[in-house]
Amino acid sequence: MSEALKQVTHAENIRYDKEAEKLTIIDQTLLPNEERFLDLTTAEEMYDAIKTLKVRGAPAIGICAAYALYSLARAIPAGDGNAFYERLAAAGAYLNSSRPTAVNLSWALGEMLETAKAHLDLPRAELLEVLYEKAAAIHDDDIAKCRAISEFGLTLVKEGDGILTHCNAGPLATSRYGTALGPILLGTERGMRFHVFSDETRPLLQGARLTSYELQRAGVDVTLICDNMASIVMKNGWVQACFVGCDRVAANGDAANKIGTSGVAILAKHYGIPFYVLGPTSTIDRSCPDGDHIPIEQRDPEEIKTMWYEKPMALPDVKCYNPAFDVTDHALITAIITEKGICRAPYTESLAALFDDKT
Amino acid sequence: MSEALKQVTHAENIRYDKEAEKLTIIDQTLLPNEERFLDLTTAEEMYDAIKTLKVRGAPAIGICAAYALYSLARAIPAGDGNAFYERLAAAGAYLNSSRPTAVNLSWALGEMLETAKAHLDLPRAELLEVLYEKAAAIHDDDIAKCRAISEFGLTLVKEGDGILTHCNAGPLATSRYGTALGPILLGTERGMRFHVFSDETRPLLQGARLTSYELQRAGVDVTLICDNMASIVMKNGWVQACFVGCDRVAANGDAANKIGTSGVAILAKHYGIPFYVLGPTSTIDRSCPDGDHIPIEQRDPEEIKTMWYEKPMALPDVKCYNPAFDVTDHALITAIITEKGICRAPYTESLAALFDDKT
Repeated sequence: MSEALKQVTHAENIRYDKEAEKLTIIDQTLLPNEERFLDLTTAEEMYDAIKTLKVRGAPAIGICAAYALYSLARAIPAGDGNAFYERLAAAGAYLNSSRPTAVNLSWALGEMLETAKAHLDLPRAELLEVLYEKAAAIHDDDIAKCRAISEFGLTLVKEGDGILTHCNAGPLATSRYGTALGPILLGTERGMRFHVFSDETRPLLQGARLTSYELQRAGVDVTLICDNMASIVMKNGWVQACFVGCDRVAANGDAANKIGTSGVAILAKHYGIPFYVLGPTSTIDRSCPDGDHIPIEQRDPEEIKTMWYEKPMALPDVKCYNPAFDVTDHALITAIITEKGICRAPYTESLAALFDDKT
Repeated sequence: MSEALKQVTHAENIRYDKEAEKLTIIDQTLLPNEERFLDLTTAEEMYDAIKTLKVRGAPAIGICAAYALYSLARAIPAGDGNAFYERLAAAGAYLNSSRPTAVNLSWALGEMLETAKAHLDLPRAELLEVLYEKAAAIHDDDIAKCRAISEFGLTLVKEGDGILTHCNAGPLATSRYGTALGPILLGTERGMRFHVFSDETRPLLQGARLTSYELQRAGVDVTLICDNMASIVMKNGWVQACFVGCDRVAANGDAANKIGTSGVAILAKHYGIPFYVLGPTSTIDRSCPDGDHIPIEQRDPEEIKTMWYEKPMALPDVKCYNPAFDVTDHALITAIITEKGICRAPYTESLAALFDDKT
């Protein structure tokens, strides 16, 4: 591994220090100008960290929420199992309400609550230990999954390829390697060269602030563009594949991801460029038949009008529409890459097969 | 005309005061926070105003350049006609080098130089008067053309339609009414209601700063969105037509316009929404066979990385690609609306017919 890559993977985005009983995250809203770590203690701090995108990226939110629930469990006083579970479930419901679109959040909280439920008869200390191990397992599991996704993804590109990505699905959004950036970072470790185009991803600029930062520090040749430049970059023949992450994938393969992803997919189809969605199977919501059933979070208009600017960039009372995500139709997706393998159309069958597999 | 609309059309973007011998523009880079007017005196100030987008929009640049050349002509001392013309042509070449893509700039300067050449035998005062009248005619002509474009464009939409526009092709970019915004403003004058979606248009945010400002002040229902939200807005069924301006149209109908326009056209095609390009016939470059022959201006990477932000939004040394324009393939354009009428495919024929017509 290159020194540069070590730096990135070393600057862990989420860690739980068991000695100090402390959940710590890197505040992603301050990157790349400042690497500030935050300790999250109260449920309100945890909710706020997710809500305001201090921790972001569907898998990272899941990992953070799992440790957060363990941390909150420690604060529940001893008592009978049912009372404990009720308070834990209430804390979980509160954290889950912070963001509606990413399925990993509710998935990780659900895993933690199920684990608690199955061990309510244990003495409190042992129950807490089981919960810690579950959270750590979700974390370790994500690292292993990102690695597997990266390996599968790497089979889809070759030395010298141009790759366009939208938003941030790198180590900061997950655990290590990332999903969409995983094949790029893994290939770079192995001495391959790619030319990556990073959409800046308005309004919150995750591509400018996070993706180009992670890739530059890992020694990858990265070019930052505005979202509206993806078309000319593709037309110039500079892009051989698009890699994006996902926040929720429906049973039919429709994929919710950062706002603008569906536009990239439509451009890719127009220019005949393969469009790949990368994410762990925990992102697949089998209870959701299609994209129309995925709730889309609406965010504060000020994110568009003033958030990053020195001066207001529009009349103060101009109406804004600010959805955080959009849904990419499965017909626009060349393949969905999970830790279990590469799924292609028809997705209803190929995605279902991932779960039949029982591996 | 509504009071609100009067405000917009009254705040003229370019004016030449003949009494005071003064060329004045509104500094568009400061809008909407400040309405500051600038007097342009030297060739360097005029070059800079165009280069740095204080005056922008292809037709507005043409009008400004015509007055600018007249203003510079006044400063050329009396002498023989050829010496006068040589100095005027040198000033024109200098102004013309400020921006390479918009054809109106070289068109307007060419008109002024041709006029000068045809009248070099006149006494200096009369020659200058002819040049002033030519510049004023280019200005008046643009007002008449925008009005005609607006009338033709208005036949393509109906009461209550949703209209998406990219960048700014309103009164600020032209003279009055504008091109892409012309049908909207004209329809609004007549009591029609539209729902306009204004792409913010990164990196220089003309949609946020100028289009939503002009429309809001004219009483139009306008919603500001980030460029990457056009796809979901179209998918939601909120857009019945796209109206965009143009900086240069090739003989085959390929149209250069603000970066991101081609992406909007591809999305519109995907969602089955008509995509209209609006501009005066002076924007049609018959000597240019297709879009591949249109030079694309590359601008400073700092526009993407830092220009509007309080803090750097990417690592300082991240590479950026910052083209000011892209070319929309003629196959993606439903119609091109000029002051002489509505052209449809095949454009090679319909655009050529505009010039055969001799009207």
